[in-house]
This record gives sequence, C-alpha cells and structure tokens, in this order.
Amino acid sequence: MSQADLRLSKNERMNGQLRFSAEIDKMTSVYRRTMLVDGSRRENDAEHSWHIAVMALLFSEYAKEPADIGRVVKMCVVHDLVEIIAGDTFAYDSTANRDKAQREQKAADILFGMLPEDQGRALRALWEEFDAAETPDAKYAACMDRLQPFLHNTLTEGHTWKEGNTDRAAVEKRMAILKEWMPEVYGWMSENMDHAIEMGWLRP
Amino acid sequence: MSQADLRLSKNERMNGQLRFSAEIDKMTSVYRRTMLVDGSRRENDAEHSWHIAVMALLFSEYAKEPADIGRVVKMCVVHDLVEIIAGDTFAYDSTANRDKAQREQKAADILFGMLPEDQGRALRALWEEFDAAETPDAKYAACMDRLQPFLHNTLTEGHTWKEGNTDRAAVEKRMAILKEWMPEVYGWMSENMDHAIEMGWLRP
Repeated sequence: MSQADLRLSKNERMNGQLRFSAEIDKMTSVYRRTMLVDGSRRENDAEHSWHIAVMALLFSEYAKEPADIGRVVKMCVVHDLVEIIAGDTFAYDSTANRDKAQREQKAADILFGMLPEDQGRALRALWEEFDAAETPDAKYAACMDRLQPFLHNTLTEGHTWKEGNTDRAAVEKRMAILKEWMPEVYGWMSENMDHAIEMGWLRP
Repeated sequence: MSQADLRLSKNERMNGQLRFSAEIDKMTSVYRRTMLVDGSRRENDAEHSWHIAVMALLFSEYAKEPADIGRVVKMCVVHDLVEIIAGDTFAYDSTANRDKAQREQKAADILFGMLPEDQGRALRALWEEFDAAETPDAKYAACMDRLQPFLHNTLTEGHTWKEGNTDRAAVEKRMAILKEWMPEVYGWMSENMDHAIEMGWLRP
C-alpha cells in the first residue's frame, strides 16, 4: 500500500500531515553508497539521517562556534528528504553532482508542497539552511553528515573509497568543512586517511 | 568489522564518542513488528526513530500543552537506543513486557556507560524522561511513538494487529496517551479502528 490508501480525517490540514508522514517512509528505500558498520548491506537515508542526528548530540564541543543542538537535530532528520524524489547523489560522482541542485529544488517543490504551507516552508527553510552550510548550526550538521560515512568507511576497509577508486585529495575536499570547523576531529580523520592509504583502501 | 576495529585518537573522550557512534549503528539490525508502508519488510529501530523524529516536527499543534520540539526530536532519536542490548519488546506481548524495565535499565548501564560521563548522563536522562511519559515533551514524543506504527498498520492492512490476533481494547490501551494528549488525532485513529474491524484486520 502507500499513502494514497490513507483514510482521511475531516481536517484537511491533518490529512496533509498524515500523507506526508506516510510518504517519507520511502526514505527507507533510498540506498546510499555507505555500508553499515557490520558490512552486511548499504545503509538507507532513514538510517543515515537518524545516525547523524544522534551523533549531533555528542560532538558539538569540537565545533568552532556553539550550535543550537535542537535545531541541528531537526536539520539532520530532514536534510535528505528531497532524495525520496531526487535520489541519492554520491558525493564523489562529479557528473551527477552537476544538476543536483536543480533536481533537488524541483523535488522540494513537490515534497514540501504536500504539507500545510507554513510547515512546508519551515521544513524547506531548514533543508536550505543545511544545504548552504553557512550558519554555525548548518556547518555543524554538515560536519556530522561527513563524519558518519567517514567513520563507516574506516570500519568497512574503505568500502566506498575502494569502490570509487577514490584518492586522498577527493576525501580531503569532501571533509574540508571538518578541517575548518572541527579541526581536532579532522586530525583523527587525517590519521585515518594515512592508515587507509597504507592499507590500500584509498589512493594516495 | 565493528567499533572494536576503530583507530583511536589521542583524546580519550573523543574515543568514547566515536566508539558509541559506531556501536549504535546496530539499531539498523533491531527489527520491529511494524512493516514499512510499502509492505516490503519490517522496519528497524533506526528507521522508526528517524520517522517519529520527523513526525514530531508536524503534529505539535494537536497536543494539549506546548512542547519544546528541539528536545522532543532529541528524545525521539535516542528513545530506543537501549534495544541494541535489550532487544525490541513488542507492545502487545504482555509476557516480554513484564521484565522489560529491568532488562532496559541494565542495557542502559552498559550502553550509556560507553560515553563520557556527562554525555552518558544526559542521554540517559532524555531516555528516562521519554519512558516515564510525564512531562509535556515526553508525552508528545510518546504520542509520535504510538501514532507512527498505527499509521503503518492502517496502510498495511493491519499487518501487526492480524499477526498478533489483536483486539480493539488492546489498541485503545496502547493509544490511550493520544486520547488524553491529542484528542483530535485520536478521533482519526478511532475511525481507523472502526474501519480495521470492518475489514477484519482487528478483532472487535
């Protein structure tokens, strides 16, 4: 079944909220490149979004400026919603990243358009703030969005890096926001990159 | 691999945070009774936690008292963490629910004990507040924790209800917090229970 089978209430506003709630369950079938820590399968967007939301409760002490963790956690849980329609764009795929912004804006029109206008606007604003990565909250959320798959890669013998024949420069570019915003965490990452190169998981 | 393979940093505090982050990925293999909306498989705890966190952004206008949504979202993402160790206890399994509290307290000692003490204490406090369901934030979070599987049940021909040969009284008991705290949403639920009985998905 799908959200189309939803039995409606008399409240049109609530119907939009229920429809949207059913629709976003599709996040469980948007698969990412990253493997689960146990290596059993790829993770999906729902799992990834949850994981970075919990991590956001833990690492703020390393960020250059304080963040409002409640807002960051909200950002984390909505930051990939548009991928229900636009699909996941692999971070190291430069071709797909060219039209990513356009695809995602169109997806946002459809998806957030399912909600009562005020709520659609609020969720979209959170997602756009995340995507712009300019405010302290968004920068910190973006760091969690990079740190989590990095952690998974280190624990799955560089699965995604090997698969993409990735080199250190590409990972450094992707992780640049941590170098800027969370230098101590980046120090740990840099040592892991050295190790990954030694192990042949990452090209020098 | 697992969190045991983590390459450590020089910062013992950060090591605890990284270990915990890797450990909680096990939420992706704690399966619940509830099916995904598309009926393809059961959902896991990571997916469920994410889903109720997003729903918490949408339904607060129906709650009897205002909630601090940032805090609620934090509660949602941590509320099932102890199940990594204690396992998921099916809401309608009265035998397993008898020693649930004791099993979960022991699990919390181990799991939150992995974190720096201040953070372990903070996450445990959030979980305990959720579990007690006494504050407005916890009541609202508990409502989302009940509404989401109810919604899934209505969209998967009462899958969990049929499987458990569940009757209306059991569902009403489980959903009592919505009757108290979100009466308008409960009205929609009650109509869905009527429909589920008509369809033979739920016993009268």
